[in-house]
Amino acid sequence: MAKHAGVSVATVSRILSGTYPSAPATRGKVMRAVRELDYVANAHARGLAGASSSSVAIIVNSVISPHYAAVAQGVQTQAALEGRLCIVGTTGGDPERELATIQLMREEHADAVILVGNVVADDAYRERMGEYARALALAGSQLVLCGRPPLGADVPAIVVEYDNTGGAYAITSHLLSAGHQRILFLGRRDGYSTPKSRIAGYRAALAAYHVPGDPALEVAGTMERHEGYRMVRERLDAGPRDFTAIFAGNDLIAAGARQALRERGLRIPDDVSMVGFDDLPPAADIDLTTVHVPHEELGRTAVRLALERERGRTGAAEHVLLGTHIVVRDSVRPNLP
Amino acid sequence: MAKHAGVSVATVSRILSGTYPSAPATRGKVMRAVRELDYVANAHARGLAGASSSSVAIIVNSVISPHYAAVAQGVQTQAALEGRLCIVGTTGGDPERELATIQLMREEHADAVILVGNVVADDAYRERMGEYARALALAGSQLVLCGRPPLGADVPAIVVEYDNTGGAYAITSHLLSAGHQRILFLGRRDGYSTPKSRIAGYRAALAAYHVPGDPALEVAGTMERHEGYRMVRERLDAGPRDFTAIFAGNDLIAAGARQALRERGLRIPDDVSMVGFDDLPPAADIDLTTVHVPHEELGRTAVRLALERERGRTGAAEHVLLGTHIVVRDSVRPNLP
Repeated sequence: MAKHAGVSVATVSRILSGTYPSAPATRGKVMRAVRELDYVANAHARGLAGASSSSVAIIVNSVISPHYAAVAQGVQTQAALEGRLCIVGTTGGDPERELATIQLMREEHADAVILVGNVVADDAYRERMGEYARALALAGSQLVLCGRPPLGADVPAIVVEYDNTGGAYAITSHLLSAGHQRILFLGRRDGYSTPKSRIAGYRAALAAYHVPGDPALEVAGTMERHEGYRMVRERLDAGPRDFTAIFAGNDLIAAGARQALRERGLRIPDDVSMVGFDDLPPAADIDLTTVHVPHEELGRTAVRLALERERGRTGAAEHVLLGTHIVVRDSVRPNLP
Repeated sequence: MAKHAGVSVATVSRILSGTYPSAPATRGKVMRAVRELDYVANAHARGLAGASSSSVAIIVNSVISPHYAAVAQGVQTQAALEGRLCIVGTTGGDPERELATIQLMREEHADAVILVGNVVADDAYRERMGEYARALALAGSQLVLCGRPPLGADVPAIVVEYDNTGGAYAITSHLLSAGHQRILFLGRRDGYSTPKSRIAGYRAALAAYHVPGDPALEVAGTMERHEGYRMVRERLDAGPRDFTAIFAGNDLIAAGARQALRERGLRIPDDVSMVGFDDLPPAADIDLTTVHVPHEELGRTAVRLALERERGRTGAAEHVLLGTHIVVRDSVRPNLP
């Protein structure tokens, strides 16, 4: 096995005894060799074919979110093209489970570990990500942040983002050009990176059209369907309708908001105009004008960049921003004075 | 390490050298000890906390399918309650990738490996599953088939199914009681276990109502949204409409079928009645009467039964059938003579 791992027999023995310190890189080599030998021996013994077990890992809160699922689908597609397996770790949003899952992927020698989605990008988060990135780099793996802000030049992580602010600016402009000025934003969530960059685009478009921003139009809530329902329901209960259009922070919020409007006899687009964000399945079924996010391309790009770096190809980008664009369906009517 | 693994030093040495045969159970013990020591040493060295890396694995074609995603969510929920990590392997439907992913999960000592969904349950499939079940049992793990037919008494697999045929019988009866007799079934796919058991319920209900079955009303297609669109579009192109109601093989097919109907100016339920199967997100947005499948409960039950068996609790069921029921929304109107 020492030969297989490319280190001395004494080193292997020390490492496997677990009683003697060794450089992490050396330990990694030995443990990898143990695994490979185990793999081969077992594959022969059991008659299971010897396919490569090289893998890429993606870690998400939950696969029930269509956004996470679509990014994971992109990872799966690209991983298959590159001859790697695709493993999805789900954490339920619990940082301890995130840590343990990354540890498991590192032990499994995943070629890349991709973390996806909305976060509170505070100091504790940045510190945790820095630790992950360095631990994975030591193990010969690569941390990729997908749909999350970059960490800083000293952290060995690849970042693949999409243009939240640009998309939100464009879709808000679409409503403003149709004459809407009182636009309810659903899904403000202070501190979180994704709603923060979407609301920034909303505010910038209002400013560009010289429409004064009104904090009372920015409704707080999470990015789930039932929250969209709750936000609109509470709003309509609180007093007369003071908006002509809704910008739902994502398509799930839009679907929930639509249900609350319908229960009050309000139709889209005849009574209220509405736009969303994501262009995921509910959008087509509810005829929603929305912002297309290249979900699968995010996952594919994350895998491609990580493996290019693994192969030592120079010039692999470390920070990529993918574009977004409006998809027009039938949920906006002109607001004539 | 020999002490940690509970075997002799000579055995450890033989196994790690990879040159000497050993009982799989012993090898498993040693490899697990290697991993645990590696895990602890690294956790201390890197400052990554020592959470348990015990895990359950679920293997699906794709997480973009809402059904698979919801079952995976159930696995994640129950795994968290039981203090295990949740790992999702995606295969893109490729049997070679399925094999390699199971191998990877076995190496990782997943406590259970759960395979989900629709299959062609032919001899090759049964043989492959038998091999998986035995290989996992040897490694101290447990194969669980979820939403798939049982394999036979000699195969050490747990089966968690839901009542496809009963649900299809009930929802077809719902249409028949409303006076529909020409009911188009969308999504026949010969050989595949899920459509096969759903169409069996459809046919049984027709027979119970003394309505002659018409093979021309059973339209072939896969269980995807765009297939629902295609099937209805082709049907309406081919000649005058010869049905008053549609039973879509799942809710995604229903969403696609609805789009094709709308493009021809046909509204649900005024012009055509429609029902689906699954009760997944598109159903609520399109007001679809459908069959509720306990997706998350399938995942939770799979984990619970596998871990009960691991703990050696007697009486753990090996074959569970979960119930389904109709959810009435607004997609069916009486067909008056």
